[in-house]
Amino acid sequence: MAKPKKTPRPKAETPKGFRDYFGAEVTHRAEMLGKIAAVYHRYGFDALESSAVETVEALGKFLPDVDRPNEGVFAWQEDADADKPGDWLALRYDLTAPLARVYAQHRNDLPTPYRRYAMGPVWRNEKPGPGRFRQFYQCDADTVGAPSVAADAEICAMLADCLEEVGIERGDYIVRVNNRKVLNGVLEVAGLSGDDRHAERGIVLRAIDKLDRLGPEGVRSLLGEGRKDESGDFTKGAGLTEAQADVVMGFMDAKRDTGPETVARLRDLVEGSDIGTKGVDELEQIAELLGAGGYGPDRIVIDPSVVRGLGYYTGPVYEAELTFEIKDDKGRTRNFGSVAGGGRYDDLVKRFTGQEVPATGVSIGVDRLLAALDAKGRLDTSATGPVVVTVMDRDRMADYQAMVTELRAAGIRAEVYLGNPKNFGNQLKYADKRNSPVAVIEGGDEKERGVIQIKDLILGAKIAEGASHEEWAERPQQQEVPRADLVAKVREILDAHR
Amino acid sequence: MAKPKKTPRPKAETPKGFRDYFGAEVTHRAEMLGKIAAVYHRYGFDALESSAVETVEALGKFLPDVDRPNEGVFAWQEDADADKPGDWLALRYDLTAPLARVYAQHRNDLPTPYRRYAMGPVWRNEKPGPGRFRQFYQCDADTVGAPSVAADAEICAMLADCLEEVGIERGDYIVRVNNRKVLNGVLEVAGLSGDDRHAERGIVLRAIDKLDRLGPEGVRSLLGEGRKDESGDFTKGAGLTEAQADVVMGFMDAKRDTGPETVARLRDLVEGSDIGTKGVDELEQIAELLGAGGYGPDRIVIDPSVVRGLGYYTGPVYEAELTFEIKDDKGRTRNFGSVAGGGRYDDLVKRFTGQEVPATGVSIGVDRLLAALDAKGRLDTSATGPVVVTVMDRDRMADYQAMVTELRAAGIRAEVYLGNPKNFGNQLKYADKRNSPVAVIEGGDEKERGVIQIKDLILGAKIAEGASHEEWAERPQQQEVPRADLVAKVREILDAHR
Repeated sequence: MAKPKKTPRPKAETPKGFRDYFGAEVTHRAEMLGKIAAVYHRYGFDALESSAVETVEALGKFLPDVDRPNEGVFAWQEDADADKPGDWLALRYDLTAPLARVYAQHRNDLPTPYRRYAMGPVWRNEKPGPGRFRQFYQCDADTVGAPSVAADAEICAMLADCLEEVGIERGDYIVRVNNRKVLNGVLEVAGLSGDDRHAERGIVLRAIDKLDRLGPEGVRSLLGEGRKDESGDFTKGAGLTEAQADVVMGFMDAKRDTGPETVARLRDLVEGSDIGTKGVDELEQIAELLGAGGYGPDRIVIDPSVVRGLGYYTGPVYEAELTFEIKDDKGRTRNFGSVAGGGRYDDLVKRFTGQEVPATGVSIGVDRLLAALDAKGRLDTSATGPVVVTVMDRDRMADYQAMVTELRAAGIRAEVYLGNPKNFGNQLKYADKRNSPVAVIEGGDEKERGVIQIKDLILGAKIAEGASHEEWAERPQQQEVPRADLVAKVREILDAHR
Repeated sequence: MAKPKKTPRPKAETPKGFRDYFGAEVTHRAEMLGKIAAVYHRYGFDALESSAVETVEALGKFLPDVDRPNEGVFAWQEDADADKPGDWLALRYDLTAPLARVYAQHRNDLPTPYRRYAMGPVWRNEKPGPGRFRQFYQCDADTVGAPSVAADAEICAMLADCLEEVGIERGDYIVRVNNRKVLNGVLEVAGLSGDDRHAERGIVLRAIDKLDRLGPEGVRSLLGEGRKDESGDFTKGAGLTEAQADVVMGFMDAKRDTGPETVARLRDLVEGSDIGTKGVDELEQIAELLGAGGYGPDRIVIDPSVVRGLGYYTGPVYEAELTFEIKDDKGRTRNFGSVAGGGRYDDLVKRFTGQEVPATGVSIGVDRLLAALDAKGRLDTSATGPVVVTVMDRDRMADYQAMVTELRAAGIRAEVYLGNPKNFGNQLKYADKRNSPVAVIEGGDEKERGVIQIKDLILGAKIAEGASHEEWAERPQQQEVPRADLVAKVREILDAHR
């Protein structure tokens, strides 16, 4: 490539739809992933980290968006070999498609059933929007090779444990369970089971999934002729008769006060449908297993309104919702909503091997969960900046270096100021920007007398914010102590603010 | 895209040069990264996670391989917008180029100096080889905006702390420090400082970097006419005269028993060169700062033979080497070698802003470090499989579920067998494959009598391996205990094997 004489400066920008994460954004997420991994591990799940890059062939085109199955991945072609064109490679768009590939590739070495967890970034080549990024984290657990719904029940219990482990209190969340087979039974009873009714079933599925947003009337319109939204756009409906729509609406409304009552109601609704009855049996079994483990309806409930959008689910589906209210961007109160979901799928491994391999799994949306904890004020945002040892005399860097070494050896986060030390005010501004709790000062005079000055910056900030000085009267903003007391005094101040 | 009638099955394979990581491979790395992050944090460094994807423009073509500066990234072009062609995007090939972009983009909001750490995968579009993958982890810490060599000294100390934190004992590693300015001074003294001698300087640099592998004689040949290797390939040399080569060889051999002696020797060698003298002053300062922090020559030494291959270093360079011996694939004894390195670079941010921003940083090769700990037997490979509750009666899954819930609530990793329970032997084989310490059995008879059978699988494995049964005579392989004692008895067995 010929080099132009003068290259213009590159723009310092993330690509559109990508972002950087700084400081606590990174560590809060790492802590959350660590807590969830510990729960997954306790349940017997093993870690798996597959590569971020897959062949397009192995990845398939199963993007979990039924409306655009052929879009959405970042892909490129490898350089050609001597005798054949290069493979197409792509960034993974979720953690489930790679799991299917891994299981098919390593199935002779893996235990069956194979419980695995995975956490890491995934990439979607989609139009970015506010709060919608093209790289984000997923945090999944799946059981491959277990046909029993005990596997689904276990994952629902584990999901509840994960939420409590990361700081969502019991009562602030609910895990809802449903079963696609029950829905299929309902559609059968409503006369929508034929192969020629595939399109209508798709519309019904998506309509039910919108219950939260559109309410029963909106869904009812989508089951019938269709619906005009606020902007005037018309969405074509499934064209069901009144009687058919009644059956579907009855299904969504089938939730009762207790699990057994809901199960009984569903059993009535699918009477005469084998698949529907099997689905109800499975739900009953799940409820029984969860009950035996002490996971009652205060944590996990059977709720027929949960369908999950994904086309590939074949049995139980589940979803975790946070039930507390938050203010949205426009100051309106709303429920926080869904933070995790999953279900049973049977065809992903079959793509590779031809054999049907039952699988079920959950994906926790860690970024939404972090936003929820933030909204509830449950993220630790206390000042975690380092103690800053200021530089009064640049020829005595070794003295200052010795101080931070002592502090660090005592487990205290500390640093020496490494910028230009000429302007002392800049050093304090730096300490401020770093959220430092304490600044240490040792000028020539102090050095001679064997003392140091210790400045309590948290107290200083509180007073600057207008806290009454009397509250803190006994505590000085700055004090002189013997050099030998450095660690003890700094620790005393840190403890006082804890 | 038209769909062919019958799609052939996709191959279940990772792309060439990529691999999957399972179980302990993932958790050992996560633990190591957590320990290193804790040290970085204690030194005042803040976490940064930039996106895996960058524009090719921002990334630049600074792949740290001087021989192939224009190759090696995975790149693709975005779809065109209405009015302009799409940007070229690429996967990051290291964590330094993204840092330069982030600092240039956010410099008004970031503190100066900015200490940041980053850890995560990077990608290289290179020919894969044995043990050489196209995705691997980096774990970096850099200080941007600090011209003082106190920043370099700090990173050397931090590197030593990191190695000890992850389990490399003092004495098993050494951090070597050198300074590019000293080398430049030596080249000046040898008469190689002109702009027209750029190529020769490059050859000299690469020759010194190969001292470990080629020995002094091999390097000497490369400084002169050139060198023929074992395979008969000839590498052209720098064409230095005997006298010039003597100066360079004297530099590499300048290491003395103590830091001050080495410094004195170097000062002699660069006499008359301003840049060389400045470099020696900086090395002296680094040694003084490290000494003040207690980091003596048992941990960090000045060693003129360290040059680091990267073209972009401008001042201090440093490298951590593990000094113990291991057996290589062919059973030969060799030193383990380098696991981390870095240095000072000043031009990376300038690309974006036009302003020179001094920076220095280190990259720890976590995968090599894990291999080293593995070779020394210092990774915890004790059985960490789950307790397996077997299924004797598939209608009593709820009973078994209740058992694992009790065990998990007590913090014990446990699972119920979720495969087909018909063949009990398969359940025990599964437990074996999972490295389970304990299997729990409750048949109909046990249920009636309110007891369970607890099988000590670790003891079983030891006996199978031929351990004398007398050693374990008091400990039964299987025992019957009341159902209520499940947790207590399992814990007793786990503790006994700890």
